[in-house]
Amino acid sequence: MTSTTTHYNALVGLHQRLHHLRHLSSIAGWDQAANMPPKGNEARAAALSELAGLMHGMRTDPALKKHIDEAQQENLDDFQRANLREIEREWRMANALPAALVQRRQLATSKCEHAWRRQRPANDWKGFLENFKEVLAVGREEARLLADQTGVRPYDALMDRYEPGMTCDTVSRVFGEVRQWLPDLIERARARQAQESVLEPTGPFAVNAQRALCEKAMRLLGFDFEAGRLDVSAHPFCGGVPEDVRMTTRFREDEFLVSLMGTIHETGHGRYEQNLPRTWLGQPVAEARSMALHESQSLSFEMQLGSHPGFAKLLAPLVREALGDQPAFEPTNLHRLITRVKPGLIRVDADEVTYPAHIILRYEIERPLVEGEIEPEDVPALWNAKMKELLGLDTTGNFKDGVLQDVHWPEGLFGYFPCYSLGAMFAAQWFAAMRRSMPDLDSRIAQGQLQPIFEWLRDNIWSQGSRWTTDELSLRASGETLNPAHFKAHLERRYLG
Amino acid sequence: MTSTTTHYNALVGLHQRLHHLRHLSSIAGWDQAANMPPKGNEARAAALSELAGLMHGMRTDPALKKHIDEAQQENLDDFQRANLREIEREWRMANALPAALVQRRQLATSKCEHAWRRQRPANDWKGFLENFKEVLAVGREEARLLADQTGVRPYDALMDRYEPGMTCDTVSRVFGEVRQWLPDLIERARARQAQESVLEPTGPFAVNAQRALCEKAMRLLGFDFEAGRLDVSAHPFCGGVPEDVRMTTRFREDEFLVSLMGTIHETGHGRYEQNLPRTWLGQPVAEARSMALHESQSLSFEMQLGSHPGFAKLLAPLVREALGDQPAFEPTNLHRLITRVKPGLIRVDADEVTYPAHIILRYEIERPLVEGEIEPEDVPALWNAKMKELLGLDTTGNFKDGVLQDVHWPEGLFGYFPCYSLGAMFAAQWFAAMRRSMPDLDSRIAQGQLQPIFEWLRDNIWSQGSRWTTDELSLRASGETLNPAHFKAHLERRYLG
Repeated sequence: MTSTTTHYNALVGLHQRLHHLRHLSSIAGWDQAANMPPKGNEARAAALSELAGLMHGMRTDPALKKHIDEAQQENLDDFQRANLREIEREWRMANALPAALVQRRQLATSKCEHAWRRQRPANDWKGFLENFKEVLAVGREEARLLADQTGVRPYDALMDRYEPGMTCDTVSRVFGEVRQWLPDLIERARARQAQESVLEPTGPFAVNAQRALCEKAMRLLGFDFEAGRLDVSAHPFCGGVPEDVRMTTRFREDEFLVSLMGTIHETGHGRYEQNLPRTWLGQPVAEARSMALHESQSLSFEMQLGSHPGFAKLLAPLVREALGDQPAFEPTNLHRLITRVKPGLIRVDADEVTYPAHIILRYEIERPLVEGEIEPEDVPALWNAKMKELLGLDTTGNFKDGVLQDVHWPEGLFGYFPCYSLGAMFAAQWFAAMRRSMPDLDSRIAQGQLQPIFEWLRDNIWSQGSRWTTDELSLRASGETLNPAHFKAHLERRYLG
Repeated sequence: MTSTTTHYNALVGLHQRLHHLRHLSSIAGWDQAANMPPKGNEARAAALSELAGLMHGMRTDPALKKHIDEAQQENLDDFQRANLREIEREWRMANALPAALVQRRQLATSKCEHAWRRQRPANDWKGFLENFKEVLAVGREEARLLADQTGVRPYDALMDRYEPGMTCDTVSRVFGEVRQWLPDLIERARARQAQESVLEPTGPFAVNAQRALCEKAMRLLGFDFEAGRLDVSAHPFCGGVPEDVRMTTRFREDEFLVSLMGTIHETGHGRYEQNLPRTWLGQPVAEARSMALHESQSLSFEMQLGSHPGFAKLLAPLVREALGDQPAFEPTNLHRLITRVKPGLIRVDADEVTYPAHIILRYEIERPLVEGEIEPEDVPALWNAKMKELLGLDTTGNFKDGVLQDVHWPEGLFGYFPCYSLGAMFAAQWFAAMRRSMPDLDSRIAQGQLQPIFEWLRDNIWSQGSRWTTDELSLRASGETLNPAHFKAHLERRYLG
């Protein structure tokens, strides 16, 4: 142990500079989606790529290795040590792959993704397959190199980018359990809902009124409009920076619940970002823990809270105020509209009950695909079989609503899909923990006493940034590591209770 | 002469990279004004400053001097040689001042500008004076250093940043002439207008309708919405990049002409940027020639064209369509509303006839101020005397509508003010040249045949970028260098004709 922290400080300085530059790339990326006119695209891509190159140069500076090694010997406090752990993790990810492979990946994914935009509507699996083979070859090579360096399984090495420390062993065990009870639960939930009458809202719903409604819901959920905005983009996302969160949604005049619930979802991401630890902002330790944790926040907002029967009582007056009064806006009916269970082909349109089926299917295909147990040609048959098995739907020949529906594979994002359902499970686990310390949680929600929920999330998740591993964070927050029993209990209470 | 262009190519590569990075800083700067919520400010400032530091490092790389010197010996064509001239000019500006002075300037101006925001409404000249002395001291030091390097007068050295090659000799001669006839012309124009009756439009004017009106005017003026946008900011400007021009305006419900004419003004800047030479984009030779030339485009649009009696016939139907019919929207009345002459204290509110008085006053104060002939304490008395002399108005004790009204001095932008009126003069000169080749120009405007005007501006100004010096550009476009007689003739025809 040395008494100075020279090397650690050099690393802190670097990450402060990277944080500043990432700010510009985030805002320019948001602008690209929300504002940019078409002729600006080429210049924007060149500008973002220039900055990415500069940042990559900073991240792969050969001097860093020595700083990291020496900093390990310096006299750091717990928070600094956690930061150093995350700094090393980021360094490892930036330096893990040879430049030639990074470039090959860039070429393969942009070619595949670009062609996919036309191939999907054209149902052109064969055309897609051509490009996808190269994307997969790159993904396998990345997985192999990363696995060799870290001593984990190839798929684990890819998953680690999004959910550090997560393993196939855990995912397979958890998804394996869910797989056992999910089809039956879907059946029973549907049978139960078949008994209920649901009134459909009558449109059109003016876009300005919908926007006002979404902003009111965001305020109800504590979004800080002094540190963020809501705008429109073709594909809703939560971007920007912790100091200035840029959420987007999209509006259709014939429907309002999709954008409302989508906005509530993004507000969960947004509040996580807005409440990351301020004093450490710019350092890796102050970043959101992982993709599953991030999704656990958006799903805490959208599913645990936003789709709660008590929350419908808070939403109903806002909906009426924005869109006028209708019988369909009565809280019980609104809640039924929000929680309808219906197996469908499209993941992003799925309800919270059928959603895990879409994820399990993808995981069960991409894990063996990455690890070389199956080949791309095998995917459609597997997709059909699993869709039949999990949701009872036939997708034979319908590639565009099947294997071609997601952007993840064309972009080579193998290992990302599990995060969605792990997030849903963590969200249920957080609310189970909250209920233990607040037995009247459900009546509080109905009364609009949401502050204790936000405080729990802030204290246990948001303010913790990346201080702990996911397992430690989960243990500290809820007394246990990931436990899918809470997710099952949540679905049973809501859909069968 | 060597047959390779290695050194020139290295310089081209550098400027390509700077162009990409400037893109991000422009878009983030626009976003700061048009979108950013207040809590994002500190992070944005840090991010922009980080990037500025990176770019400054690239611009002051010691290797550049050798590249520039060697490139002079390389076998370059005319366009490349013009580019090299501009590259050298940019290099000189980036490397002219010691880092300590740049930092001192940054501190002095941000302190002065920040305090000025409160001092102006409080009419606090004494408080302002304290900070302004340091801003001026820095400005004088900059002027001295730059003048020593280039062998010109100190004020010329500052003006050269905005209007390359412009000298006090020219400005004093030109402004001296205008000074002779302007007060009399103002008197006569006002006497004439006193005979005319003008109907005031009746508000309120809905913001959405005004926005639609402004966008229609922009379309009429050929703005490419595939390569730019119109948004709202507190202080209207034309930002973004040539590939994606971001114009802003602001709306008040009780008034529509200010934002409409302001938008027409910014459209002139916007079309210049949108039509800079594409194949050279990113290189200094492809940038707009100068601030006066830029202003000659916004004033060509706002004053020469937008305030033309024939143009009022084109505007009237757009105004009626957006805001409903009113007697005040009749073309002759609309034109009278647009061209009313009224001496006032505030430069930015001034009409085209009294505007030069505001500029001459500032020039006659800041030139001797920078060159040490007078001191900051002398400014208010001089301001009062000149305001009386030029516009017949008394400003004694009214600092907030006098010396404190502009952001330029708190920000240390000495040498900028002349560009506004030089731009007005160039605009009159361009339209005089157009009239020589198109004797029926005025009737064409009234008939909406604006394409020949845009083509003239594109061929003579926009597409030329920085290929020529201002003098050469003017000579090629209009057969003469700056000649203020055209401005006088324009005002006489419009206001006394």
